[in-house]
Amino acid sequence: MATTVRQIDRYAASIAPFSRFFSSSIWARLNEPGVANFAVGNPQEMPLPGYVEALGRALRPLDKDWFAYKLSEPRSQAAVARTLSGRTGMAWDPADVAMTNGGFAALAVTFRAILEPGDEVVFLSPPWFFYELLILGAGGVPVRVSLAPPVFDLDPATIAAAITPRTRAVLVNSPHNPTGRVYPPEALGALGEVLAAASERNGRTVYLVSDEPYNRIVFDGREFHSPAEAYPATIVTYSFGKTLLAPGMRIGYVTTPPTMPDREGLREALFVAQMATGFAFPNALLQHAIEDLEGLSIDVGALERRRDRVVAALRGMGYATTNPEGTFYVLAQAPIDDDMAFGEALAELGVLVLPGTVVEAPGWFRISLTASDEMVDRGLPGFEAARAAALERTPA
Amino acid sequence: MATTVRQIDRYAASIAPFSRFFSSSIWARLNEPGVANFAVGNPQEMPLPGYVEALGRALRPLDKDWFAYKLSEPRSQAAVARTLSGRTGMAWDPADVAMTNGGFAALAVTFRAILEPGDEVVFLSPPWFFYELLILGAGGVPVRVSLAPPVFDLDPATIAAAITPRTRAVLVNSPHNPTGRVYPPEALGALGEVLAAASERNGRTVYLVSDEPYNRIVFDGREFHSPAEAYPATIVTYSFGKTLLAPGMRIGYVTTPPTMPDREGLREALFVAQMATGFAFPNALLQHAIEDLEGLSIDVGALERRRDRVVAALRGMGYATTNPEGTFYVLAQAPIDDDMAFGEALAELGVLVLPGTVVEAPGWFRISLTASDEMVDRGLPGFEAARAAALERTPA
Repeated sequence: MATTVRQIDRYAASIAPFSRFFSSSIWARLNEPGVANFAVGNPQEMPLPGYVEALGRALRPLDKDWFAYKLSEPRSQAAVARTLSGRTGMAWDPADVAMTNGGFAALAVTFRAILEPGDEVVFLSPPWFFYELLILGAGGVPVRVSLAPPVFDLDPATIAAAITPRTRAVLVNSPHNPTGRVYPPEALGALGEVLAAASERNGRTVYLVSDEPYNRIVFDGREFHSPAEAYPATIVTYSFGKTLLAPGMRIGYVTTPPTMPDREGLREALFVAQMATGFAFPNALLQHAIEDLEGLSIDVGALERRRDRVVAALRGMGYATTNPEGTFYVLAQAPIDDDMAFGEALAELGVLVLPGTVVEAPGWFRISLTASDEMVDRGLPGFEAARAAALERTPA
Repeated sequence: MATTVRQIDRYAASIAPFSRFFSSSIWARLNEPGVANFAVGNPQEMPLPGYVEALGRALRPLDKDWFAYKLSEPRSQAAVARTLSGRTGMAWDPADVAMTNGGFAALAVTFRAILEPGDEVVFLSPPWFFYELLILGAGGVPVRVSLAPPVFDLDPATIAAAITPRTRAVLVNSPHNPTGRVYPPEALGALGEVLAAASERNGRTVYLVSDEPYNRIVFDGREFHSPAEAYPATIVTYSFGKTLLAPGMRIGYVTTPPTMPDREGLREALFVAQMATGFAFPNALLQHAIEDLEGLSIDVGALERRRDRVVAALRGMGYATTNPEGTFYVLAQAPIDDDMAFGEALAELGVLVLPGTVVEAPGWFRISLTASDEMVDRGLPGFEAARAAALERTPA
């Protein structure tokens, strides 16, 4: 009947590169013996023993309500607020912590809470797979701003130029997937000034949505500073799935600093949005274990050493690469323009990477440092051979 | 700036009776000692030991992917398809089972998958708290059809009269919360004919969304028959939270029978909708335990005996009540028109019920049979005293 594009097809189109990759001949090699898997931020080693023990303890029911309906449990809110107060130096209010079933849901809930149909959200490219989908899914209009390779710096002036009277939020992801950049406080401060001026001009708040799932995965002794420290109207979204490397157990949160204007109104909107998003709260079990989960982490030092090794090796082979300040990811330039074809060539050598095209970084490919050291051993010769073969076929 | 009602405020308005109740002076008595809690379908006894044991076994990681990202796991899909094939006599396709983080999310995902902005969904009143919200949340227009008290029969003719060219779905909940009705196959067959005719007339499918979380909580030796057996374009939503009485551990599904037209298209739309709903998949742990979860149940016989006792006792006191064929709930008529005031009077006597106004059944109140037998012992005198006091104040 309708001649317009269906809503669900617009959603599907926004994730088409993701869908294509996961039904591609590259990903199909996932379970072949000997594959070195650098494609996604999934565990390549057994779960943290402390994680399994913590859940085992939390599983033993202490009362009849152990597995009853759970919203944001007060002990979860308190544990998160304590951490955030310690990290930011602000007195975080537990009531401003909305526990969600993962960081994915935290973003879905955030956009539902703040967007009216037609409101614009500026997001930065290369983006995470699903930003555009989640903005569309809440009735918003995604507005893309590109980060310039090879450095991918946050540029407040370019963002300022993309802001209109309909802009409701700017979505920033730092530490940034896939570039590994951790944006410096100066850039965030400048962005805060841009957003404050835009809020004033527009007559309503322009939020900074700070997607921070990697905020504890930082290297070289860095301290992560949340944009919430620089700009009051910051909404922080977080996932425990990175630090615990257990992304199949969904827990995360949306939270706002004590400096947020109209905190109570936003708190109520977030609650209604959690309901409208199909009861977007974490399972009881994960909330019972929250103090342990807050304290646990994979070995970030091991990730850093793996970064050092991979970056040095790839550069030694002649690849241009980022040198990530945080996250799980190294971006490297493919020796040919067609990163999908290069990803295919690597896959034929038993090395799985994420072609940059999937995350709007054509000509690049992404390597996840969640691969095991043994996969690095096995994979490095593949990177060398694929590069040599590609250059051989390409006249200089 | 805007003078129109904000979207989030429309959502909030749709659940205002729910929100008011849970911030009311009635609910505030929840934790007072000696309270007999009949207000909601939450556990009032310790979790099933078999449930805790099943999760304990599923917690031990057998491979590196144990807690990695999980979509609908093949073993979950197979277990559910096996059950549904057995229950319906149709050869259910595992590929048509989309595992979700609960029945709430199953409905959110369903409406996202099938609705275009402005599409109408007919739902039946008294409804579950969140039907209207979830229809609105997917851009749909909720259309209310009332079930007539005191019998609350499904009336295909009344539903037929509510169908328009914009109708995309009719939402049916059987066994029905809060009336306890299990709709007979004849009524479902007649409804199927109405929907088939409407689909033909409209030139697109009118779906029957069958919300069946209580389909294993049926009494008196009944067998539940899904509307999916009567009407091919039926989308079934399910929650494990009722049969396991563990609603804080979110697992459920959306599924379609092998008779569904354009099954593949719908399957893809449901997948995209799960992504757009913030990764609406169940946790890894629950999927690892799926075969056990499919086999476990609370003691339905004990619920049935509790129904017998509560219904007989209340009727003996002079209350008009339903005699539920399934679900957790008995509906009883308040002796005064103002069910909120009567709920308050009961609460003062240590008896918590859900006033009918909260679920569009003014003048009634809902009693959950998940209360313990001991709460029934303690609560019954309160029902008697509150009724006597109310009648004393009301001139005959």
